[in-house]
Amino acid sequence: MASVNGNGVKASPETEHPRKAFGWAARDTSGILSPFSFSRRNNRDDDVTIKILYCGICHSDLHCIKNEWTNAIYPIVPGHEIVGVVTEVGSNVHKFKVGDKVGVGCLVNSCRSCDSCKQGFENYCPRFILTYNAIDTDGTMTYGGYSDTIVVDEHFVVRIPDTMPLDKCAPLLCAGITVYSPLKYFGLNEAGKHVGVVGLGGLGHVAVKFAKAFGAKVTVVSSSPKKEKEAIENLGADAFIVSSNSKQMQAAMGTMDGIIDTVSAVHPLTPLLFLLKAQGKMIMVGAPEKPLELPAFSLIMGGKIIAGSCIGGMKDTQEMLDFAAKHNVTAEIELIGMDYVNKAMERLAKADVRYRFVIDIANTLTTA
Amino acid sequence: MASVNGNGVKASPETEHPRKAFGWAARDTSGILSPFSFSRRNNRDDDVTIKILYCGICHSDLHCIKNEWTNAIYPIVPGHEIVGVVTEVGSNVHKFKVGDKVGVGCLVNSCRSCDSCKQGFENYCPRFILTYNAIDTDGTMTYGGYSDTIVVDEHFVVRIPDTMPLDKCAPLLCAGITVYSPLKYFGLNEAGKHVGVVGLGGLGHVAVKFAKAFGAKVTVVSSSPKKEKEAIENLGADAFIVSSNSKQMQAAMGTMDGIIDTVSAVHPLTPLLFLLKAQGKMIMVGAPEKPLELPAFSLIMGGKIIAGSCIGGMKDTQEMLDFAAKHNVTAEIELIGMDYVNKAMERLAKADVRYRFVIDIANTLTTA
Repeated sequence: MASVNGNGVKASPETEHPRKAFGWAARDTSGILSPFSFSRRNNRDDDVTIKILYCGICHSDLHCIKNEWTNAIYPIVPGHEIVGVVTEVGSNVHKFKVGDKVGVGCLVNSCRSCDSCKQGFENYCPRFILTYNAIDTDGTMTYGGYSDTIVVDEHFVVRIPDTMPLDKCAPLLCAGITVYSPLKYFGLNEAGKHVGVVGLGGLGHVAVKFAKAFGAKVTVVSSSPKKEKEAIENLGADAFIVSSNSKQMQAAMGTMDGIIDTVSAVHPLTPLLFLLKAQGKMIMVGAPEKPLELPAFSLIMGGKIIAGSCIGGMKDTQEMLDFAAKHNVTAEIELIGMDYVNKAMERLAKADVRYRFVIDIANTLTTA
Repeated sequence: MASVNGNGVKASPETEHPRKAFGWAARDTSGILSPFSFSRRNNRDDDVTIKILYCGICHSDLHCIKNEWTNAIYPIVPGHEIVGVVTEVGSNVHKFKVGDKVGVGCLVNSCRSCDSCKQGFENYCPRFILTYNAIDTDGTMTYGGYSDTIVVDEHFVVRIPDTMPLDKCAPLLCAGITVYSPLKYFGLNEAGKHVGVVGLGGLGHVAVKFAKAFGAKVTVVSSSPKKEKEAIENLGADAFIVSSNSKQMQAAMGTMDGIIDTVSAVHPLTPLLFLLKAQGKMIMVGAPEKPLELPAFSLIMGGKIIAGSCIGGMKDTQEMLDFAAKHNVTAEIELIGMDYVNKAMERLAKADVRYRFVIDIANTLTTA
């Protein structure tokens, strides 16, 4: 979609803003990404301009560029796990200065006045603006982090702690906050809690690390027996259950205070609900396309909860990064060059990555 | 099921305990109730013996006597909305004395030592003992309130406040606590909250009254347009939405802090979830037999919760009665004689009651 300027003439992505920008975009439902020249707005009083260093590849990027959520507006520059360095700040910017290492996640704006915004849940603002494939307040499209620069209101920029490796930090901006926020808000961030993590992918592996950092006992529930060694030896999980192993599932019945369910394929809920203690909480952060079957009895007996959770607010995102730095929580990544992105998407579609691709933007995104 | 005494001889319900008792029981899946002579245990040190005055007819009674939950053990004396007067107390009983007006709800025992019990949620104890159709600690069956007397550990007996009409109070022992408990635990018991009540039957009409007493704005969501006048004029609801009216549903979108869903037929969840504000909570207290369809997206976007809730703990049950007395919350009832019970069950199956049948046990249960 091109925007319309004051004279009613459609402006192109390349000329609608004064600053040149360059990235890779998908042009159609093939989802194939290729070089793309576009533009960014001038740095406003509340804005921070960021030279992008790294950008993680989230599974939503893949869904979006292939229009699997039927809301794609091409061309799309994906990327909402952005880490970079500040190159310019507006006159009202207080949190950041030139040279600071910063991050941008899934959101670049929200209404700032609704109840959700006021309570620090910009992620639930009905008028939030996503980092890419969304229409910004000025009517132009937002373009994400598979690009050289981005200009963002400082409220939606977070500080990367000094000790945090910048590449392994990138996925925390989406995957990290997506699991940190429900662990916090459903009281699973306390030592001694027993937390189940269902699915061991981009979200799941970070959920294990955060839950362990909170002091919880962590059990991974997975359909793949081959992930057990990895879960326990590398990620630090305390136990591992194969979801199809009814003996293992039975033995764990009624033992978990909470479950973070990261699976985005259709799957049965009842066996997972059985793992919960009375008044236990299962939080879904993966979104299967088709409805799941919910037997009311399995919630009513035991007074259990199923919740959905979607990323997190800005204050919590900063808190998550600070906590991650303090407890050495980072994502396990495979660092790739920009040229590899289409191959990476193919592999991601087959879940062939441990656990997150991160694009080395600064060193590999070239206009040549 | 008959129990087995120390000599391996099966004792009959009439002789297994020393005290004669009389009630009405269902003998088979027809669910037809008829006079039944059985027995009650002697009053133990912690026990209270109660002469039953009134007993409400809960929809679960109907499910149970017809074996619709496939767990019936005949003969069944139903009834777990019991109001009566204390006729005897054991030497350890401190809360009650002879002559006190008391109530017994769905539970007559629990383990008293698990986490749920310790936290006052006997209703989630994995070893709770239901008031009827359950095996008691001594191996005999429990028999409910469609009978002349009952002997219960004082922990599972509550005091009926003096100002409370005894007949209209009976349904609060099950229907009342079933809606009061989730209103309390999900923070919907605060002035200014907007609470939706889905379904206007035995549970729903009491939910409206409690939510109003808490100071909430209450909107009834019902499939029956004809219930509007009743909901607003008699029960005090602030608004009424016909669930099939998409304009009304659309207008209420995103306005509710919480919903008490009392519907026990299969029904779509998504339109109800749309009524919730961000981070709103829908609590299911009706239990459809078949699984409901749960689209994960409708929970994730907006960070919403679906919870199940099952009656309530003993401390909360007493608190509920005291609150009800203070705020004049009672059930709307149709008082019937014991002889009418089978007809009442037929009418209940057709939802032909406003809103709860209560049996006048003391005046109509006769051995003649």
